[in-house]
This record gives sequence, structure tokens and C-alpha cells, in this order.
Amino acid sequence: MNWIDEGALFSQISLFLREDLGRGDITTQSIIARNTRARARFVAGENLVVAGLEASEEVFFTLDSQQQLEAFVSDGEPVEAGKVIARMVGFADVLISAQRVALNLLQHLSGIATLTNHYVKAVEGTGAQITDTRATTPGLRPLERFAVELGGGYNSRFGLDDGVVVTSNHISILGGVAGAVKSAKEKLGYLHRIAVEVSSESDVREAIGAGADVVVFEDLSSKEFARLAGIARELSKLVGIECAGKITPADVREYAEAGAQLIRVEALTNAAPAANISFKVQPF
Amino acid sequence: MNWIDEGALFSQISLFLREDLGRGDITTQSIIARNTRARARFVAGENLVVAGLEASEEVFFTLDSQQQLEAFVSDGEPVEAGKVIARMVGFADVLISAQRVALNLLQHLSGIATLTNHYVKAVEGTGAQITDTRATTPGLRPLERFAVELGGGYNSRFGLDDGVVVTSNHISILGGVAGAVKSAKEKLGYLHRIAVEVSSESDVREAIGAGADVVVFEDLSSKEFARLAGIARELSKLVGIECAGKITPADVREYAEAGAQLIRVEALTNAAPAANISFKVQPF
Amino acid sequence: MNWIDEGALFSQISLFLREDLGRGDITTQSIIARNTRARARFVAGENLVVAGLEASEEVFFTLDSQQQLEAFVSDGEPVEAGKVIARMVGFADVLISAQRVALNLLQHLSGIATLTNHYVKAVEGTGAQITDTRATTPGLRPLERFAVELGGGYNSRFGLDDGVVVTSNHISILGGVAGAVKSAKEKLGYLHRIAVEVSSESDVREAIGAGADVVVFEDLSSKEFARLAGIARELSKLVGIECAGKITPADVREYAEAGAQLIRVEALTNAAPAANISFKVQPF
Amino acid sequence: MNWIDEGALFSQISLFLREDLGRGDITTQSIIARNTRARARFVAGENLVVAGLEASEEVFFTLDSQQQLEAFVSDGEPVEAGKVIARMVGFADVLISAQRVALNLLQHLSGIATLTNHYVKAVEGTGAQITDTRATTPGLRPLERFAVELGGGYNSRFGLDDGVVVTSNHISILGGVAGAVKSAKEKLGYLHRIAVEVSSESDVREAIGAGADVVVFEDLSSKEFARLAGIARELSKLVGIECAGKITPADVREYAEAGAQLIRVEALTNAAPAANISFKVQPF
Amino acid sequence: MNWIDEGALFSQISLFLREDLGRGDITTQSIIARNTRARARFVAGENLVVAGLEASEEVFFTLDSQQQLEAFVSDGEPVEAGKVIARMVGFADVLISAQRVALNLLQHLSGIATLTNHYVKAVEGTGAQITDTRATTPGLRPLERFAVELGGGYNSRFGLDDGVVVTSNHISILGGVAGAVKSAKEKLGYLHRIAVEVSSESDVREAIGAGADVVVFEDLSSKEFARLAGIARELSKLVGIECAGKITPADVREYAEAGAQLIRVEALTNAAPAANISFKVQPF
Amino acid sequence: MNWIDEGALFSQISLFLREDLGRGDITTQSIIARNTRARARFVAGENLVVAGLEASEEVFFTLDSQQQLEAFVSDGEPVEAGKVIARMVGFADVLISAQRVALNLLQHLSGIATLTNHYVKAVEGTGAQITDTRATTPGLRPLERFAVELGGGYNSRFGLDDGVVVTSNHISILGGVAGAVKSAKEKLGYLHRIAVEVSSESDVREAIGAGADVVVFEDLSSKEFARLAGIARELSKLVGIECAGKITPADVREYAEAGAQLIRVEALTNAAPAANISFKVQPF
Repeated sequence: MNWIDEGALFSQISLFLREDLGRGDITTQSIIARNTRARARFVAGENLVVAGLEASEEVFFTLDSQQQLEAFVSDGEPVEAGKVIARMVGFADVLISAQRVALNLLQHLSGIATLTNHYVKAVEGTGAQITDTRATTPGLRPLERFAVELGGGYNSRFGLDDGVVVTSNHISILGGVAGAVKSAKEKLGYLHRIAVEVSSESDVREAIGAGADVVVFEDLSSKEFARLAGIARELSKLVGIECAGKITPADVREYAEAGAQLIRVEALTNAAPAANISFKVQPF
Repeated sequence: MNWIDEGALFSQISLFLREDLGRGDITTQSIIARNTRARARFVAGENLVVAGLEASEEVFFTLDSQQQLEAFVSDGEPVEAGKVIARMVGFADVLISAQRVALNLLQHLSGIATLTNHYVKAVEGTGAQITDTRATTPGLRPLERFAVELGGGYNSRFGLDDGVVVTSNHISILGGVAGAVKSAKEKLGYLHRIAVEVSSESDVREAIGAGADVVVFEDLSSKEFARLAGIARELSKLVGIECAGKITPADVREYAEAGAQLIRVEALTNAAPAANISFKVQPF
Repeated sequence: MNWIDEGALFSQISLFLREDLGRGDITTQSIIARNTRARARFVAGENLVVAGLEASEEVFFTLDSQQQLEAFVSDGEPVEAGKVIARMVGFADVLISAQRVALNLLQHLSGIATLTNHYVKAVEGTGAQITDTRATTPGLRPLERFAVELGGGYNSRFGLDDGVVVTSNHISILGGVAGAVKSAKEKLGYLHRIAVEVSSESDVREAIGAGADVVVFEDLSSKEFARLAGIARELSKLVGIECAGKITPADVREYAEAGAQLIRVEALTNAAPAANISFKVQPF
Repeated sequence: MNWIDEGALFSQISLFLREDLGRGDITTQSIIARNTRARARFVAGENLVVAGLEASEEVFFTLDSQQQLEAFVSDGEPVEAGKVIARMVGFADVLISAQRVALNLLQHLSGIATLTNHYVKAVEGTGAQITDTRATTPGLRPLERFAVELGGGYNSRFGLDDGVVVTSNHISILGGVAGAVKSAKEKLGYLHRIAVEVSSESDVREAIGAGADVVVFEDLSSKEFARLAGIARELSKLVGIECAGKITPADVREYAEAGAQLIRVEALTNAAPAANISFKVQPF
Repeated sequence: MNWIDEGALFSQISLFLREDLGRGDITTQSIIARNTRARARFVAGENLVVAGLEASEEVFFTLDSQQQLEAFVSDGEPVEAGKVIARMVGFADVLISAQRVALNLLQHLSGIATLTNHYVKAVEGTGAQITDTRATTPGLRPLERFAVELGGGYNSRFGLDDGVVVTSNHISILGGVAGAVKSAKEKLGYLHRIAVEVSSESDVREAIGAGADVVVFEDLSSKEFARLAGIARELSKLVGIECAGKITPADVREYAEAGAQLIRVEALTNAAPAANISFKVQPF
Repeated sequence: MNWIDEGALFSQISLFLREDLGRGDITTQSIIARNTRARARFVAGENLVVAGLEASEEVFFTLDSQQQLEAFVSDGEPVEAGKVIARMVGFADVLISAQRVALNLLQHLSGIATLTNHYVKAVEGTGAQITDTRATTPGLRPLERFAVELGGGYNSRFGLDDGVVVTSNHISILGGVAGAVKSAKEKLGYLHRIAVEVSSESDVREAIGAGADVVVFEDLSSKEFARLAGIARELSKLVGIECAGKITPADVREYAEAGAQLIRVEALTNAAPAANISFKVQPF
């Protein structure tokens, strides 16, 4: 259900190329003859889930529309270390000049998909969904959300405008959970579901009493989460139960088994290292 | 020597806000009264080097110019876990709506400065310089280069247009080191220094023989690097000696001691996890 | 709860001015001396609800920031024919050159607020809410939504991305109400409320049976609407009940009294004539 | 003689789509399978003159270039209620997602063409020309001018930069008709024809005496207009005679018969209700 | 009557600076300390008419708003070789980094004003006006038109959209002067004056017979021009008489004395060498 | 080695066309029927070197992609007066509307190539290279650099960010050559070659002593240049020797023979008059 605006992506890739090329790749332009045919290969340097291959392809095409890419795996597929991900045929100067931007995208997005997949596998069979958060790299949110989806995760709201979450900062200003939720319910309930961040038993009771559609448990141990989630479920069969915080692949399953329907993980998009992928060019 | 184009940064921050706010923060707008005064604090959740504080401040100002930030540390300073980095006074709705973009920037850039600093400390006293590479997050290169500098690192060329590096991909197409270097020397030597990637003894001899100003050793063990760097230094007192590859904070000192003047580290900008920093808003 | 992005509005007003001024107001520039002080008045030519006064003010300020406007009524207030809405003091050339764009905005938006207000008054006391639709003038949606709010109406979803409505066109493709609703519920129910357009008793039963949160009755007579709304309410106490179609100020109350919680009216934004407002400039 | 800048139109349509789609049509994307073939029809719900069909077509093409439209009438042709205006074949998701923007344009522009045509028919045989004014919807002037032309009307100057009209506001500042006209004549007469707004006999005499090429009678009854137009014609055989103001289809012929060569009507572009046109999608 | 869109000028100057500074003035940034106060002087290296001083000032201000310029002459004034045109006080790094763009503008525009002034002086007393043409440097038309005005010249139409000139290329396609002029008269005569390029006696007769408001004599000797201009004046007392072509400061007076009311000179904007102006920075 | 960013060129040409066409070529649109086939020819009016033919072609294509150009010479080739440079086939209205922008570019760039070629021929056989400077027309630097290359010249650094030149203004602020050069060497020497402007013997000695890679002699007579260049060569076999200033085609050879390896000439790009080229359209 992820939607990448192709026109916007194309503009953005142009900006990425301009960032790296500036007034042109002076090395390549001065030593490689124009129209020299060449081929190249993307190779996985570790086990990973591929994401961003189409975007990387677009980088080469944006610079020069005559490059051809043959992919051996699709975005979202796992590959093992040493495997050739894709092969390209084109012009040597274009392949070399576009390489860094293409690799930067592919490594970054594959890193996210790979990390997401670790979380997803850890909760397999529990019915819990792993979702991203708004802790994305500025400027790259649509691509990073797509990488999360490719890794098997779900997307949460895109931004502050397409979903309602009453956070602890809202509650701190308003002085209480119940008032905050009631106010949101009245003003936006006819259009949106109302989610609210909670961290104590009284929060849970106030939130559900005031009509919250979803409760999000923040930064709790899995044990404490289990206890409060149980109370929430008792209070309402319909309320959505989610958790968030510094949850690792090692302990995520505990939250899932304690009743979390959705688990929001910031690390998916702000702590995944670039995947190890190389790009080698050869004469034809 | 880092140069952040302020007009460009301002435009970019507007785009980052638009990415997160879209048509507006509907939750905050519906439950927090306009012009409610509030204060907030950025707190370090781990030991880190601060980077991006000015950019984060700019995020709040871009949304509404009346917020005031009092910083307790400056960009580039180390702080310990638990320390308050800065304090803000302003309007509750603005602080809440801008929070995520500001935090995303601050955490990302502080993560880079902190990792860079680990490398820099590891080579202290050797005279070697740690530099960034072009393996940056697309769209964020100027900010990430600045974070590297704040962490004590140096910047390499900004892009393909302001420096000449003959890479292994160029050499693969041209069929040899000597020809590639000679060609670059002739065409660009009157304007630029010529660097070349090498990985064997014969490469080193060809490169220096053809007039390379700098040799960059790629993906060698520190031992092999030491051997080849010695040969390079023998061949020329003036040639610059650099190394690059998957070098970690643990082994970087070996390269420095083996004679690397510059050590290029991709991980600085493509593998640093977001620093742990929180933002809490309170009524005034 | 309406959110006007001020930066975006400012850019848009610059474009509106450029559309009208092109390379400059040649008449005014050639016959009115720069820096000639003048004053001007906006006068209502009929009973109306004012909307767009701040935007109009912004038009003058965008051309030259030294104009001052003193408003006698605020956006959202009703005025009678003949009443002075606002008074301006500034430079004659700026007042004259910006006049047409300012008036075009003010007349258009006041026309919408005025028409909306007729509908709102017609349902007074019934509890029904009058809402706008996506049938807005391309490019002016944020301003038009704001005018609807000023006239006492409510806003429906901003666009296709921040709310879910299963329409008759979706149902036509999918071959049935139940399947369409179920699919939407599964894929988006964890994030959004699901609304569905219905026009027969079987539609209503299928929609509610499949878990729709809201049913929207399209193009029904008020009598038929009353009958089906009754069935819907019987099936579920929680389901939202809305109607839409060619409803006029004359018959809107019948729908409200038949149980419509929300009444969606396309005419608010696509059939309101410009309000009659004049702008006269005088020497100081 | 109307000129639509195709590049600009294309950019504008992209903005219109972005306004409605934002980050994507979440309903359609989640329930309609990609590449589902479908067909659709635009049907007239009342007698009207079609305008904006090409622009509407462009809306679908901008979203996805594979949609095909077969038009049964061309822009500028009248159709009767019930008639199919055009038929489309394409993908269900694209047809549904683009529908609202396409309809908003087509209904708005056809509304203008239809109203214009009523005025044009009312003066048939008199030789008078019906023209638009600058009272257009901000951002849509080129399209609205084109709709006026399709309805049989003429275009007046595009903006303040490509024609000279001395208005009552200019005259108010300058303190008299004669001085204003003389000044305009001297400064711009070598490049442009000079038009001037008049509303009394003395105005007419001053204007023509000072060399005005055109006199525009503002807000006069048709009787008073007839009297003053007669005086103007007596004073000069060459002067252009125009009228403007709140003229309706019912009384426009009186002005034409009283000697108006051009009749400027604000209502064409600021008071035409959207034409009634529907769009229905069906499976293939 | 020249109109410089200040917002557009500001954007353009930002682009000019970006063109020269790219990612920053690396020399200055690395060797001049920030906030070093300095002063500088613009000095005329030859007799010239100053144009572009305000634009040059804007260049410095765009880079950093704290520079102060004290001008000793205004745009449009003549200065002698050796004279100080203006003095600046500000920061050394800003003065040095902005210098080249500021000088490029000032020298180019002063070159145009100076050359224009030679033509204007040559026809002094004859009543003829020297005007620019559309043969301007792409992207700089508004500034170059302004420079012409500062040199004492007049502006012709800004572009193809705000004036009507039937050229020899139109006539070549249409197969004759009379038809071309009649057609333009009918279609645009109610909005614009009609000018037509002529080069023979029969052209003149056809053009005036068909109702041309202005005749433009192209590429004729002054003698032949005198003869045809006489014929034109005989045919009509009202027709405007203009000439154009490769006219030099040496022979321009002959055309003026032969009856040219306007003389269009391409060289003003496409053959004026940069004026000799230097810029020297000194410590404070 | 010149790099024209095609996307950027295309955008720029669109702006150039918009500058000239504004809201459209009203003359042509009103009198020339759409789709009238025509042909046209570019003819040299003097001996010149062609530059900008591809860019001019792009102007026509940008307006309408169906025009065909057949070139008889390529960019960079010399042609004699009277020779047809290229022939076009297309639509009369497009050829006429785009003509002025196309000619303005072609004449301007051919003027630069032609003047450059005079300098290049004057130093033939000496080994000296003629280079451009940053004294280009704002906004046109990439095209003008390309024209210089087509005329046989070389390009110097593109802007302030891709090369290091310590100028007399830097030295004036820093108070001496040696310190300035040393500072630049330390901060940027690992990335760039360091050039420095000198004008006396002591400057030369300081510069070379401090490690300058290149010395640039400013505004010296050829005799004085010869003396100082000799001293520089004695001090270092490796240092680059360049000169700059008001050097004419008449005296440029003296500098070349005195040992200048590069001669930087501002006049190439700021004093070349438009080349004489005409464009005539004919019916098919």
C-alpha cells in the first residue's frame, strides 16, 4: 500500500545526482571516451534483503536513458553473500559517474529492509505487525517506508496530517489523558481513529474511558506491558493495542506474545547500517 | 572549511517539515490552543558528540520564528548521558509539531559526529587524518560533512567535480594504471592534483611513475598496506599516501602507524546509528 | 481545525500577482508617481459573510510590505450591504496594482462562506453538520476549505490520502459492496475509519455487515434517505450516517431531520458566485 | 488567439493532482488491483457548452500516460443533457484516482463556456463582442480565458502589463480624466492604445479631448450609456466604445443596441456555477 | 517606465552567486578569518555611464546582509576615468567572494548604458528616440532594458506578447504586406497598435493602406530611408515612423534628421563591451 | 572537457523562451495559421567560428519538437561571410516565435568563439594556452566556457569552489604573500594545487618559497612579465607560470614568447560583440 510518487522520485534523484556530480565528473570526462560500452555488476557482500534496486536503476537512467539493467532478484527478495544482484550494460562513463549515488541508495535501503526482516522473523506466528515510525532520515521518508514494507514490515501514518496520535507531550500540556482524548475524539473522531500514548494503569483507564480507539504503550518492560495490555483488553474488546520504544530483535517476541498487535520500532529507519553491496565495472 | 549554504539549508528544512507535516499536524491543531506557552528540553540519552543543534534550532524557527533556544553545549562538544543539551521556550503547538524533524536531524548528525570521534581518538598522536567519503545519505551530504568535521574528521572532495580520483573502475576500463594516470595528468594536471586507487606493488610503481600526486590504497590488510606504503614513500617523498576500505575503530590505528596520512572511512556517514537524544515538552 | 500553510500561501499569492501583473502594471507605473500616499476602502455590496480578508491583506503586503489594513470585521463575520469591511492606508500605485488579485480572492472566498452559511442556518438545531467535498477549484482547496469553516461548515478529508471512502466507482469495479468494504477494513482498518457510499437497502446491509464505520447515502430523495438511514441505525448504533448529492438550501433541513449526521454539499465550493465587494482608492 | 503554455499547464495539473492525491489515493491503492482494465464515461447532466476536455484528458495522462480518451464532442461544442461527452479506456485505479481533479476542471470550465454562450447569443446580430475581464479565479486565468473563447466570447488584455486602461481609481488619485489620459498617452502612446474608464459626459469629453483611443463606460444604465455613447461617437469616429458593470444576459442586448462595441462581463469568470457532468467507471 | 521585479531579481542574483560560488569560495574560507572587517572601492577605469550599481549592491547583500555601500554616483550618471564610483564597508570574506559576480553585472550594464548614451547624444535635438530591441542577452533582458533607459534610451516592447510587430518573416509566409496587416488589424486592433516592417515603396503604401499604425524601415541607407519616410508621412499624418538595422553612432543622426521618430538599435544590448571598472579590497 | 548539464540547459532555454514569449507571440498567433510548413536558413554575415548551434536547435525543439535542423557546419568550425550555416524545416509559427532567442544565443556564443580564435591563432606554435576567466555573463557561464573551448581556448576553474587562487585582494587583507600561500597550502594543499597572483619580484620569491604550485602575473607589460617569469623558472622547475590582464590579440604573442604557459583573457567572455548571423523564413 506504499505509494512512491514517481515524478517526485525522479526530481529527487536528479537532485541527488547534482549533489554528487556538481558541474560534472571531471575525472571520468577527461579520461574515459564517450560511448565506450561497458558492463557492471552489483554483488551482495553479506546476506541481505534487497531494497532500492528500482530506484538505483532510475539513477543510471536519469543520467542517461540508454543503460540497461537485468535484475536477478527483485526488491524485497533475500540474497546470500556473494550473489550477483543485478547486471548492467551501458556506457562506461555513465556507469562510473552514477555509481556512487546508486550505491548509496541501494545500500541504505537494503540495510533498512534487512534489519526490518530480522524483527519480522522474530515475531513470526504471533500475529503481531512490525511497523515503522516517523523517525526517518529527513528527505527520504517515502523510500524508507517502502524499504520497511519490502522487509515485511507495515507502515504507520505517513506524517502528522494523516492520522491522530495523542502523545505524552500533548498530555503534558493538557494536564491529563482523559481531557486530551475527549477533545481529540470530538474534533476529529468523525474523520479519524484516535490513538493515545499511555504508560500507566491510570492512563489506560482514562484513555479507554474517554473513547480512545488505540492505546500505545511507550518504553515499558515486556512484563509491565503484558500487565497493562491485559487491563486494556479487559476494558475493551475493540481497542487497538500497540507498543513502542527501544525494542530489539532479541526481545521483540516477548512484546508480541504479551498481546501487542502493532510494534513500532524507530531503529528500522534510524539505526540500520548500510548493507554491504559492491559495484564493479568492466570493459565489454 | 565546511561551507553550509544557508539559503539552501533553509529550503531543505522547509521540505523536511512538509514531509512530516503534510497538510498540518491535525492532532496538535485540534487539541492544543494556539499561543499556549511551553518549554522543552533536549536531553542526551548516552555519551555523544553534539552535531546539528543549529540545524535543529532552525527547524523550530522555520515553523514559527518566535521560539527561543538556549544551548548548554555547542555543536562539536561532547556531552555525557543525562546531560541537558539545550532548553527551549516557545509555543506548545510549534514545539510539538516541529519536534520529530528536529530530533531526526539532531540524532542523525550527532550519531555521525560521535562515531567519527571514536575514529579520531583512536589515531590520536599519529598525525593521520580521518576523512569522510562520498558514501553519504543522498540529499544530506553538506550536513553530514559538517558533522564529520564537528567530530574531528576532515572532509574529502565534495563531489565528482572538485577533485580528481582515478578509481579501480576507471583503470578497469582503460586497461592499466599508467595510461589512466598519464591521461588525467595531461588533461587536468594544470588545474588539479591527481589521486589514484592502487592495490598492488605494480599499481604503485605505475601510478607514481606516471606522475600521480596521491596514491589511495583500497581494501588492504594493515600489514600489506604497510609494505606498499613503504615502497611508495621510497619512490617519492612528495606523493600523498592514503588508505580506504572496511576499517574499524579497532584497527584504524594500525593503518595510521603504517604511514597513512589520510584514512577514508565510509562508515562515518553510512553506518552511524542515531544518537539517543530525547525531547520533552512541559507547560510553562 | 483548518491549517493554512503560510509559506505555501505566500508563494501562491506571489504567483497570483505574477499572473495579473506579468512584467508590471504599465498604466500605473507610467502615470502615478511612486510614493504617493493614498487610502482605500473595501465595501460590501450585499449581505455576506466575510472570508479571505487576511489573504487579501497578504496580497498587498506581498507587493509592498508598507501597506496597512484596518479591518472592521474579521474573517467569518457577517456584514450588511453598504458596510465598510476594511480600510487601507498605503501607496497609491501599490493599492491599485494589487487591487484585482485581492478582490478576486476576497469576493470568491466570501461567496463560499456566504453560501455555506445559508446551508448551516437551514439546519440549525438539528445537530447535523454541513461539510465541504473535494469538488473545489483546482489550486484553491486550502483557502476554500477555510472559507467553508468560516461560514460555519465542517471540513471533510483533505484529499485521497487522509481518509478512506469506498465509492460507487470502486464498488462497480469490485462487483459488490461487501467485498470492497472487507478489503478496505483489512488493509487500512488499523489506521483509518472506513466510509462507504451506498444507495439501496442491500448496500446498507452489506456495508454494515462487512464492518463499515460510516455509510454515505448518495443522491437519494429525503424520503428514501429517511427510510434507509433508519435501517442503518437499527443495524448499528455506532455507524456514522451521512448524505450527499444535489441538496439545496431549501431541502437540506429535510435530510437533517431524517437523521443525517453529516451532509456533504458540492455546491459550497463549486457553485457559489463571487460576493459583491468593491474597492475604492482615494488621495490622502 | 488564446495561448495556453503547455509546459505550464502540465506543471499546474501536476500540482492539482498533488493537491488532491497528496501522498496517494489510499482507498484505491488498497482495494483495486493494479493494471485492472476499466472504462468510463463523461455524461452531460444538463445542456451545456463543453470546455476543458483536453485539460481533463491531460489530468489522466499526467497520472499515467496509458489512458485513452475518445471524445464525442470537441471543446467549444454544445451538448444536450444526457449526452455522452467522452469515453475512456484505461486502468481502474488511474481512472478513479484522477477523476475528481478532471471533473473539477471540466465542470468549472464548461460552466464558464456555457454562461458566456448565453451572453453571446443574447447579442447575436448586433456586432457587439462579449469579453472577459481580469475578475478570474486566481491561478486559472489562462484556462478561464480559453473557456470564454470556447463559449464565443473575446479576451481582453491578459494582465496589467499588456494593455493600458486608465481606471476610476487612477483618475481619483490624479484628480481628473484629462491629465491622466494625457500622461498615459505621452508615456505609452508610442507602444499602446490608451483606454479610459468614464461615467459622465464631462469625463467623455475630457477623455476624448486628451486623446484616448477607447472609452469604457462603467456601471451605467443602458439608457444613460446610450446617451453618452452617442456623445462619444459624435466627438470621434475612431474612438472605441465599450461598457462594463453588472450586466446580465437579460439586459445585455440593450447595451449592444445602444452602441457598445465591446461589453466586458465579470460574471463570465466569477459567477458561473459548475456545469453538471458525471463520470462513471465500469469494469471492462 | 522600466519595471524590475524585485523578487525575481533577488532569485536571479542568488543563481548568479551559486554559479560562481558553487559549494563555496574555498580559497577565501580557508585563509581569511570570518568577521574580518574590510573596505573596498569601485573605481572607473574609463569614462562611462554607471548602470547596475543597485544590482551589484544586491549581490553583496544577498551573500550577507551586513555589507554597507556608499555610492558617490547614482545609476544613470556619467563618471570620468579614475573616479571612485562607490565605497563599501563590510567583511573581507564576503567582499572577496561576491566581487566577481558584482563586477560582472556592473561592468556589463555600465557598458550598455555607456554605448546607449553615445547614440542618444548623437541625435540630441532632433526629437528622435533611441530604443532597444529584443536582441538582448538571454536571461538578462529586464536588467539590460533598465541599462538602456539609464543611458537615455527608450524601451520597445518587452517581448512577443505585449506588442504587435508584423515582420518580414511574417510577410514572407503570408505572401504580402497588405494581407498581413489587415489580418493583424482585425484580430488585435481592438487591443493593440499594429507595427509593420517595410523596405520598399510598395510595402509602405500597402502597409498604410491596410491600416498599420506604425511602419518600421529595416536595413535601409539613410538616403533611401529619407525618401520612403517622406512618402509615408504624405500618406498619413498619424502613422509612426521608425527605423532599424546596422546603424552606428556615426550615422545615426542622418536617420534622425530624415524623420525617424524611433531608432531601434540591436548593438545597444548585443555589442557593448564590458565597461572598465575595478574593485579593490583593503584591510580596515 | 567541458560539461554542459543537459537538464539544466533545457530548463534555462525554457526560461529564455518565457522571457521573450511571455504569454505568447500574439502577432504570429493571430496571423499565421497553425501547421503552416516553412523553411528557414541561418546565414553568416561575416567570417566567424560557429558556436551555439546545438543550443539554438534546442530552442526550436523546446517550443515544438517537430522542427528539423540540417547543419552544414558543426559547432567549432569556421565559416566565411555569406555561407549558409544551417537549414531548418518546420512550422512557420514555431520558426518565427523561437527565432529571436535562438539568434541571440547563436550570435553571442559565435562572437565569443570567434574572438577566442583570434587569440589562439596569435599564439600558435608557442605552446601557450589561452584560457577564459570568471568574467562571464551572469547565468551563461557554462555556455560561454563551451564557446571558448570551441574557439580553441582552454577553461580555467569553473568557480570559486573547484580551484584555489590566492588573489591580490586576499593578500591585501592578510598583509603578505608568504603567509597567504602558506595558509592555503596547509588547509587545502592535500586536496588542491595552490595558485597565487603576483606582481613583483618579491611576490614571486615569497610565493614560490611558501610552496605555491602556480604563479599568476597580473597586469604587467610583456617585458616586465618576461623578467619575472625568468626569475620564477629559475626558482622552480615545477611551478606553473601564467599571466592575466588587458592583453589584446595584438600583443598576446609577446607574453606567450616570454614564457607564459597559460594566458587568462577576460575579454573572451565580456567584450566579444555578437557575431553577424541572419535568419530568414520562407514558405515551403
